[in-house]
Amino acid sequence: MKKTSALRNTEQSHQIAKEKEDGKEWRRSEEQESGAEDIVTGCPKESDMEVVEGSITLKLPEGSNEVLIKNLYLSADPYMRILMSERESPQSLASYTIGSPLAGYGVAKVVESGHPDFKKEDLVWGIFGWDEYSLSPQHKFFSKSSTLMSHFPTILEFLVCICMPGMTTYAGFFEIGSPKKGDNVFISAASGAVGQLVGQFAKLMGCYVVGSAGSKEKVDLLKNKLGFDDAFNYKEEQDLDAALKRYVSDGIDNFENVGGKTLDAVLQNIRVQGRISVCGMISRYNVDQQEGIKNLIHLLLKEVRMEGFNVSKFYHLYPKFLEFILPHIREGKIMYVEDIAEGLENGPAALVGLFSGRNVGKQVLLVARD
Amino acid sequence: MKKTSALRNTEQSHQIAKEKEDGKEWRRSEEQESGAEDIVTGCPKESDMEVVEGSITLKLPEGSNEVLIKNLYLSADPYMRILMSERESPQSLASYTIGSPLAGYGVAKVVESGHPDFKKEDLVWGIFGWDEYSLSPQHKFFSKSSTLMSHFPTILEFLVCICMPGMTTYAGFFEIGSPKKGDNVFISAASGAVGQLVGQFAKLMGCYVVGSAGSKEKVDLLKNKLGFDDAFNYKEEQDLDAALKRYVSDGIDNFENVGGKTLDAVLQNIRVQGRISVCGMISRYNVDQQEGIKNLIHLLLKEVRMEGFNVSKFYHLYPKFLEFILPHIREGKIMYVEDIAEGLENGPAALVGLFSGRNVGKQVLLVARD
Repeated sequence: MKKTSALRNTEQSHQIAKEKEDGKEWRRSEEQESGAEDIVTGCPKESDMEVVEGSITLKLPEGSNEVLIKNLYLSADPYMRILMSERESPQSLASYTIGSPLAGYGVAKVVESGHPDFKKEDLVWGIFGWDEYSLSPQHKFFSKSSTLMSHFPTILEFLVCICMPGMTTYAGFFEIGSPKKGDNVFISAASGAVGQLVGQFAKLMGCYVVGSAGSKEKVDLLKNKLGFDDAFNYKEEQDLDAALKRYVSDGIDNFENVGGKTLDAVLQNIRVQGRISVCGMISRYNVDQQEGIKNLIHLLLKEVRMEGFNVSKFYHLYPKFLEFILPHIREGKIMYVEDIAEGLENGPAALVGLFSGRNVGKQVLLVARD
Repeated sequence: MKKTSALRNTEQSHQIAKEKEDGKEWRRSEEQESGAEDIVTGCPKESDMEVVEGSITLKLPEGSNEVLIKNLYLSADPYMRILMSERESPQSLASYTIGSPLAGYGVAKVVESGHPDFKKEDLVWGIFGWDEYSLSPQHKFFSKSSTLMSHFPTILEFLVCICMPGMTTYAGFFEIGSPKKGDNVFISAASGAVGQLVGQFAKLMGCYVVGSAGSKEKVDLLKNKLGFDDAFNYKEEQDLDAALKRYVSDGIDNFENVGGKTLDAVLQNIRVQGRISVCGMISRYNVDQQEGIKNLIHLLLKEVRMEGFNVSKFYHLYPKFLEFILPHIREGKIMYVEDIAEGLENGPAALVGLFSGRNVGKQVLLVARD
């Protein structure tokens, strides 16, 4: 733990600092900075990150139009692994740089605002640094949360449902997956952030929904709480192709995926004109060399569409998404299961745990209750 | 060479036989019939097929509404390999059965017709058995060719442009590939049946077009006759990724593919929101176990759509396709290079040659000149 500025990745934050309060942040460890192309290799380890203590002035300078926020909840998501390997960063997301805080979706509270659209105590959501306090230019906020928040019992439920997983699921399932009533939908990593919502959206649409997950607890959750038609523990299956033939005997129309061996088995079981929404490849994020996907020929044989997407391209559909989800939220038709780690110091373990499936439900990091 | 019925795969043809004339057909060899799941394994060999001599009566029975045709040109295409492995047959195409003739696209002449839409001497195109004469129910014909034919200098050019390759290219490039003016289009197997047309369609659309092929002769053809902006011999490249970075330095938007290592290199070089039309995976047809595609993560990172298709699903666009292509044909803006094998007895070699790239241009089998 070093004493350092909480916001030292932005020059500007130093210049405007006036009053000081202790603050913490997460940042990428500098240990591996020495010239490697991939700074984090394989599965991320806690030692790839460090928690740094620093100080920040909780007052804006005269005339600033920025917004000073205090983070409440941060969303720990598998895509963050991609941002640790610069060469693989998607163009719409900035890769992390060594020594700067990680960044991701979160809900925060406005401490002070120099921008007319925001005032003190407003709840905001967007992409924030993984720190206790941040100074953010207004464009980094997606939305004031206050109005939306009123539809949710807690900020936490708002985060899980509305931030990254909700919109990602909506875009991936409805826009990329083009689902039809009666489709057979198979979801791997089904109890995860996106998986659990895909399953519920698919059930609302009248699909037959099967999920796979990595423990009995998760399988029970899928079947008994989240309303999946069936579910299985993939770790107990020697032959994923055979498992899929057993659980979705007439083939899969629509699939949300983790890549790897599961994808190969899905390709063997996909039906004509099936759709594969590539909204994650968690099995691929951690390996530099893998076996490779062998069954892509089925894309041709069965006229399958496989499409990767970035949720940020679908933000124009946000009003449509809210129109869809809010009534279901009000009627209690959407459940969400979250796994909460508390305190920035437990952030690295929470993030690393995603890749071994340690989390049950959406992994959230609670930074402060208010 | 055995003496047998030319049409013994259809019971009906025997019953209606009245007048006899010598005929030949191609059929799958019976040697491998004994219970193997894949009847043809790996790259097809000439010994997987045999030419059989037989006899057929060139007269329809009273009251028949079928059509007796004489094949003129047959189209030898890589997808035919798929039909040799029953378990991999796409649902819209019938797999070959042991002892029956191969089947594929062709242009034929009506010898006698029991159907009011067709008359003697009409030219027809559709999916026909690889034989000299066939008795075909009317629904197997796509179209009378006579009217269309008037737009083409020869029947052969009609076959190359209008039968499978033309419509496949049109559907794959325009419908699946969603090309935009200025796109960088990379085409592997670029001098082949589909490749040469994709390149020309892309140039007409204002794209930058690079092709790869397997010999200097083919590369010269692409650059000097077919109007590609650039082309290279993939066999001379140690590192396909590096080759693509050299030839399409700012990335690929649109790609027609052969699968395998080329696909992996394309994935490394695809641009954001690129599109990969899976209209063939010739490199995959011949192998039971392959290395696997390792770079699918780029579908996610770059929001890429990869889609397989079957041309038969696009036949409703036929009028639109003709509206597009006929003016270009008339103005001499579309070139086509064909490789002609003559006589059914040279069919097996022509078909096998597709998989080693022996053909230069679209492989056609000339059965009879008229």
